[in-house]
Amino acid sequence: MLAFDLLKTDPDSHARRGTLTLNHGPVQTPIFMPVGTYGTVKGVMPRSLEEMGAQIILGNTFHLWMRPGLDVMQSFGGLHGFEQWKKPILTDSGGFQVWSLGAMRKISEEGVRFASPVNGDKLLLTPEVSMQIQAILNSDIVMQFDECTPYDTNGHITTEDEARKSMELSLRWAKRCQAEFTRLENPNALFGIVQGGMFENLRQESLDQLVEMDFPGYAVGGVSVGEPKDEMLRIMAHTPHRLPAAKPRYLMGVGTPEDLVEGVAQGVDMFDCVMPTRNARNGTIFTRWGDLKIRNARHKTDHQPLDTSCTCHACAGTSGVSWEQGGREGFSRAYLHHLDRCGEMLGPMLTTIHNLHYYLNLMQEVRDALDAGQFTAFRAKFKAERARGV
Amino acid sequence: MLAFDLLKTDPDSHARRGTLTLNHGPVQTPIFMPVGTYGTVKGVMPRSLEEMGAQIILGNTFHLWMRPGLDVMQSFGGLHGFEQWKKPILTDSGGFQVWSLGAMRKISEEGVRFASPVNGDKLLLTPEVSMQIQAILNSDIVMQFDECTPYDTNGHITTEDEARKSMELSLRWAKRCQAEFTRLENPNALFGIVQGGMFENLRQESLDQLVEMDFPGYAVGGVSVGEPKDEMLRIMAHTPHRLPAAKPRYLMGVGTPEDLVEGVAQGVDMFDCVMPTRNARNGTIFTRWGDLKIRNARHKTDHQPLDTSCTCHACAGTSGVSWEQGGREGFSRAYLHHLDRCGEMLGPMLTTIHNLHYYLNLMQEVRDALDAGQFTAFRAKFKAERARGV
Repeated sequence: MLAFDLLKTDPDSHARRGTLTLNHGPVQTPIFMPVGTYGTVKGVMPRSLEEMGAQIILGNTFHLWMRPGLDVMQSFGGLHGFEQWKKPILTDSGGFQVWSLGAMRKISEEGVRFASPVNGDKLLLTPEVSMQIQAILNSDIVMQFDECTPYDTNGHITTEDEARKSMELSLRWAKRCQAEFTRLENPNALFGIVQGGMFENLRQESLDQLVEMDFPGYAVGGVSVGEPKDEMLRIMAHTPHRLPAAKPRYLMGVGTPEDLVEGVAQGVDMFDCVMPTRNARNGTIFTRWGDLKIRNARHKTDHQPLDTSCTCHACAGTSGVSWEQGGREGFSRAYLHHLDRCGEMLGPMLTTIHNLHYYLNLMQEVRDALDAGQFTAFRAKFKAERARGV
Repeated sequence: MLAFDLLKTDPDSHARRGTLTLNHGPVQTPIFMPVGTYGTVKGVMPRSLEEMGAQIILGNTFHLWMRPGLDVMQSFGGLHGFEQWKKPILTDSGGFQVWSLGAMRKISEEGVRFASPVNGDKLLLTPEVSMQIQAILNSDIVMQFDECTPYDTNGHITTEDEARKSMELSLRWAKRCQAEFTRLENPNALFGIVQGGMFENLRQESLDQLVEMDFPGYAVGGVSVGEPKDEMLRIMAHTPHRLPAAKPRYLMGVGTPEDLVEGVAQGVDMFDCVMPTRNARNGTIFTRWGDLKIRNARHKTDHQPLDTSCTCHACAGTSGVSWEQGGREGFSRAYLHHLDRCGEMLGPMLTTIHNLHYYLNLMQEVRDALDAGQFTAFRAKFKAERARGV
């Protein structure tokens, strides 16, 4: 099932505030979805995700197909029971991952043939197989199998003709996905994915045909695939707000905090990105006042938490009171700098909690601003604060 | 300060039940102390340690002296504030670590000269310096600086003459530690360490002279240093129960669950060991029914938690209800096997929680048995259950 209630629209932008109801519960939008590739959001426990307000997480179909495999997934009745996450899950189609195998895969009308990177087995991923795997995973949102049109291939920038062929293949695959999803009587929701590369006319064609197929939700794919920032912003400005207003819109694989706020303004409801978790493990921290590199020697003796306004477990400890509000239970920059220097696991554990909390809290602030009719003021404040510097 | 109240003694063994009161609070004995070398018990958050009932943890003087260094420690007023742990801390003297540097260090009457493994600086660790560092760390229990007599050196088993010289050096250093600890007006408690290698007569001499110096607590050092198990058990049977009954007794660096229960029977009150945390990271799990290797393929589809009787977060989730009691919120062996196979951080995070909980809960069961006057029956049950197999 999927129900989408549009609660409020911003008069000065395409931003919207909504509630998405899925088989495993409701999701307040706009929302950021942490990425849990192998059935775990890297470095964080499910209970911590719940505590920081995560409402829906991702799983990767391709990875979970390879390991632990479908027999294990089936025995648990899907991904929820396996990873002990009770709220909604969205799974991708595996298309992006097989595409990323490069020379290891061959794309045809039928689907993608490839050798398993785990054991070398020759495998075939088709729209039908993707639907079958995602049915076993029992994810609340199933993504159509598509071809992610590259921005460039070994320096050759994708031409309009190439982008059209790729987009049209994805459309034919969308139809096959819809048919198989229906045949499987999957009780969850299938999203179509708009492709078309960096060409607005192709994006429009893709969008029009997908809308005709009447999916319960739509994604914008093929962005954040190596293109320059202004190209991404151009597509972000073109496509999302042209999608049906009554249905949820998901911008795949985006992005920085600034990208998220801009995406909301362009009418996006859902985002996912590995950036908060990956950057946390590399010591790059997102804060209200800009980004911070914990490896920098200037943090060696700093008693302040990562973000003085933050109430996450890393910054505020079990008290939940931020440094600004007088809380002194959090972990200091000096301590996190030390953990990083010593290669201690607790370092990425705490920075992952902080970065995810930052993203989730940012979206909470976005929702609060939309609820209050203050989104324009929020955008200005967000931009000024991020530019201040830590 | 240190107060030790002996609550109960077992009529059939040397086992005792006590309460140790330190500057940062009380500790119920017998107790296991998780090891937090660099100011973090590897892979686990302070809040998780509290939830699983940890009452006191260790810090390593040598490591913390090297990184983050004394300036940082001093600015935090000690180790507690730096690592956000509010309960008692015990620090070792650094003696074992400098001794472990092998060719990199030179031992003299004055102390140990060595090159910093972090930056190559030429350093000198003496009884006085160890006391000064531990005063800055503000640990509740300070260990004397000693020479850990090796069992063998490159295959040469330590002779009685060598063990005597080493033991006598440690005794002279014990006096210097006591003088410096007093001069520093350290408000915490200093423990003396019995040495003497594998020789009962030397152990007795060491013990007698340390008792004469009237420390508030005593440790047995120089065991679990590579000697055969029966040698360790021989010293464990000789020394602990000969220490003053009114003072706490700490067996350093020991050991397996079986060693802990045997140690309690021999009159030991306090234990520490890296085994639960290190083994967790290597996928070796302690359970009531024996040990388990999570990498073993037989766990691939097993829905049971690591230990069906366990209430830790890994085995029982947020419910705290064990599998045996009908709880189904825990993480399965299949899931933990998968995390291990994929190299996901959540694997060691959960197995570390489990193994530490196992050790801490074992000591809780030991204390309960002693309180109930059932220690002999407990030992038999413990042995039978561990032998059953997982």
